[in-house]
Amino acid sequence: MAHTYQYPRAALTVDGVVFGFGAGELKVLLIQRALEPFKGKWALPGGFVHVDETLDDAARRELFEETGLEDIYLEQLYTFGAVKRDPRERVVSVAYYALVKLSDHKAKAATDAAEAKWFPVSQLPKLAFDHADIVAVALARLQGKVRYQPIGFELLPPKFTLSDLQHLYEAILGAELDKRNFRKKVLGFGLLVALNESQVGGRHRPAQLFRFDADKYEKLKKRGFNFEL
Amino acid sequence: MAHTYQYPRAALTVDGVVFGFGAGELKVLLIQRALEPFKGKWALPGGFVHVDETLDDAARRELFEETGLEDIYLEQLYTFGAVKRDPRERVVSVAYYALVKLSDHKAKAATDAAEAKWFPVSQLPKLAFDHADIVAVALARLQGKVRYQPIGFELLPPKFTLSDLQHLYEAILGAELDKRNFRKKVLGFGLLVALNESQVGGRHRPAQLFRFDADKYEKLKKRGFNFEL
Repeated sequence: MAHTYQYPRAALTVDGVVFGFGAGELKVLLIQRALEPFKGKWALPGGFVHVDETLDDAARRELFEETGLEDIYLEQLYTFGAVKRDPRERVVSVAYYALVKLSDHKAKAATDAAEAKWFPVSQLPKLAFDHADIVAVALARLQGKVRYQPIGFELLPPKFTLSDLQHLYEAILGAELDKRNFRKKVLGFGLLVALNESQVGGRHRPAQLFRFDADKYEKLKKRGFNFEL
Repeated sequence: MAHTYQYPRAALTVDGVVFGFGAGELKVLLIQRALEPFKGKWALPGGFVHVDETLDDAARRELFEETGLEDIYLEQLYTFGAVKRDPRERVVSVAYYALVKLSDHKAKAATDAAEAKWFPVSQLPKLAFDHADIVAVALARLQGKVRYQPIGFELLPPKFTLSDLQHLYEAILGAELDKRNFRKKVLGFGLLVALNESQVGGRHRPAQLFRFDADKYEKLKKRGFNFEL
């Protein structure tokens, strides 16, 4: 069925930058395009917005259809509207970013969607469309956020060590942090609850496990802080 | 000329929340709608995105056409896509917010566009569409921003007193701030340059005038800070 309008209209899409954290690395979930344009190239999961669904719903639906992910932390990022960003026609894309625990979702993305794959953010392949720009804006948002809001709850497993948390911050910021300084600051926020458990393994001595204090986490998210890193 | 597509398409608009600061109040620039829907109601300036212009260009063009404003500080805010936000059909709107110096723009908005008017943000009339939501999101963005980035350069005249700056923060936050504490903190950032001038007038004794240190301002904008207010 054809749909006719008085003026030409842009097509509207959503694209999602899904961040995960594993093995000390910040990762992004990409899919390999099956169709032209950019056939065979890696791209962000996404697709066209239906005329009767909200943008958030479209983003959740596309992420689920293309990567099997559901019930994830999702936030609108920015809307990309360069005139020639799609070679076919004018396409405006509302970009989202999502944070997932790799521990929950690793298997899923690898099985349900054969073409979905996690890439370290520092070693992304050449991406289709302006998706490299979208990833850059998402990463900048994440880097900005860690300075004034707690982050990590959505990216770390429920129990983690201070090293895990430091590695997450280092992976997001792409910089090494001073261990003593980091611990002092992060413990100073009163955000972490020490568990009666340690992580045993590897060459290292057992490391204290922590969880986030959910109330304090929500409060600091609202109030903000200054995490001078 | 008719334009035909295989699937129905949303119309795409831009809307602008223009903030100004004057007489101790944070204000928003509104226009009175000349056409249905919401004829006669106050609304944000905005309109349809042309298929061959970027979103930023569309926002600048619409603001100029509807309010006479140009060369202003403009940032994309959020994209609003509730399915029934426009009673006519599906319309997705990319919202922007702008900061202007009322001293520069007051006259213009009053003459070029007879129907444009500044309203104190605390006393807005009932707005068309979901524009009250858009203003709320813009205000929340501004309130968040003052905590971790310097702001005010775009809203204050080139020379201002510490009282002006405090009143701006109070107007944005909708809360009174402690004068001594505010001054100590704001001077501590090294952001302000004391001028060899005072403001004389009213019942008060002459007040020291300041300007922003542009370099320091840009640095703090990038690096961020924690302005615990």
